[in-house]
Amino acid sequence: MKLLRFRHGETVAWGDLDGDTIHLRASMTGARTGETTSRSDVSLLAPAEPTKIVCVGRNYLDHIKELGNDRGDLPTEPGIFLKGPNTLAVHEERVAYPDWTENFHFEGELALVIGREAKNVGRDAALEHVLGYTCGLDLTARDKQSADLQWFRAKGADKFCPLGPWLETNLDPSDVRVTTRVNGETRQDGRTSQMIFDVPTILAYVTRFVTLEVGDVVLTGTPSGVGPLQRGDRVEVEVGGVGVLLTFIA
Amino acid sequence: MKLLRFRHGETVAWGDLDGDTIHLRASMTGARTGETTSRSDVSLLAPAEPTKIVCVGRNYLDHIKELGNDRGDLPTEPGIFLKGPNTLAVHEERVAYPDWTENFHFEGELALVIGREAKNVGRDAALEHVLGYTCGLDLTARDKQSADLQWFRAKGADKFCPLGPWLETNLDPSDVRVTTRVNGETRQDGRTSQMIFDVPTILAYVTRFVTLEVGDVVLTGTPSGVGPLQRGDRVEVEVGGVGVLLTFIA
Repeated sequence: MKLLRFRHGETVAWGDLDGDTIHLRASMTGARTGETTSRSDVSLLAPAEPTKIVCVGRNYLDHIKELGNDRGDLPTEPGIFLKGPNTLAVHEERVAYPDWTENFHFEGELALVIGREAKNVGRDAALEHVLGYTCGLDLTARDKQSADLQWFRAKGADKFCPLGPWLETNLDPSDVRVTTRVNGETRQDGRTSQMIFDVPTILAYVTRFVTLEVGDVVLTGTPSGVGPLQRGDRVEVEVGGVGVLLTFIA
Repeated sequence: MKLLRFRHGETVAWGDLDGDTIHLRASMTGARTGETTSRSDVSLLAPAEPTKIVCVGRNYLDHIKELGNDRGDLPTEPGIFLKGPNTLAVHEERVAYPDWTENFHFEGELALVIGREAKNVGRDAALEHVLGYTCGLDLTARDKQSADLQWFRAKGADKFCPLGPWLETNLDPSDVRVTTRVNGETRQDGRTSQMIFDVPTILAYVTRFVTLEVGDVVLTGTPSGVGPLQRGDRVEVEVGGVGVLLTFIA
């Protein structure tokens, strides 16, 4: 099932998609209200209501190598960082190329949204806390990552996390394809089976330290092929079984 | 004026303090409702409603030196990192010593809460976006700061940001005393005039990259004297003109 978040008149609504019909729901995790609208009549919003966005760095070996971080030792624990809710951007958003970076990178990723509060969950039960999966674009000012004390602005500036177009609730995240295209050309093409830490392991690790709230977002890391963007670029992140997230760099 | 956030029956309320009387308010930034309650009848909550907690690292020269980060060069820009809303803890909270660190540190700080959305604010207008000031305790698993990719768990685990006891709306943050006592013994004793980047400069810098929302928290850095905590410790952070935030390490 595809869960959509969208602007509906003066309010923000959730619904599930059936052909071109959206069945409205009482909330992100609520039941159908009986009301319907048409997919073509609404403008989509990022399908999450996060208090935080928890991201995994260096989770695909080939990406570690391309960043020059491969010292022959794999990470023994997931490397986690935060983005704030201010980073969310919608499907088909125009994101301005920041005037303070000269190396603005795309990183396409499998993202997930929490549907049930998670603290100290085990690997076996971890996926029961996931509401659905979507496409994430972890925009990164690469030149500020090493220059700054932490990755605050390199990863956390406004609109640095396009997310969408919707949540797919029926997906096995263990082996889906993650591709990123820039102006139609494939630049990243990986599978989640290549992750060093799989989704259940990520959730078990993260929730040892923090409580994941309903609506929180987890980005699971990016395959190799990351690279610089230019003004005017059109970025597509595709997750197999979910769909395509489109972002314009303005 | 002191603004308090507290549990009021089944709900969470804001109010201002007048002697032992709390005048309830419609919201954090709202007007008095006419209803009152007694200070001694309510239990205080962290006086903020953040979408993110933005923190400044290495903002006092003596603290930079004590961490061994002094290479003769002062930071040229504020070093910023994030804590999630999951880190909030209340005045008089019992925070469990985490079982995954062997070097759990206190860092007492001046904190502020945003009262008006701030994006690209100049230094001159920055303080107009501040609702009030309070005491913050930036709990830190020091051994995980350098061991991990980013400071996610070192700074961001649940309850790693006790905040309170209230907001003081009438304060000039340019030269107030910030002291931290552990079991009654003074361990940190600085003044905000010793900051490398003052509050207006921090807000101007941060809002170049992110939008600060109403209710967001900014922690402004810690003076020298940080050190390890033990189970059973009683930590007091005092900000001159505000009050004392009390935290128990359990």
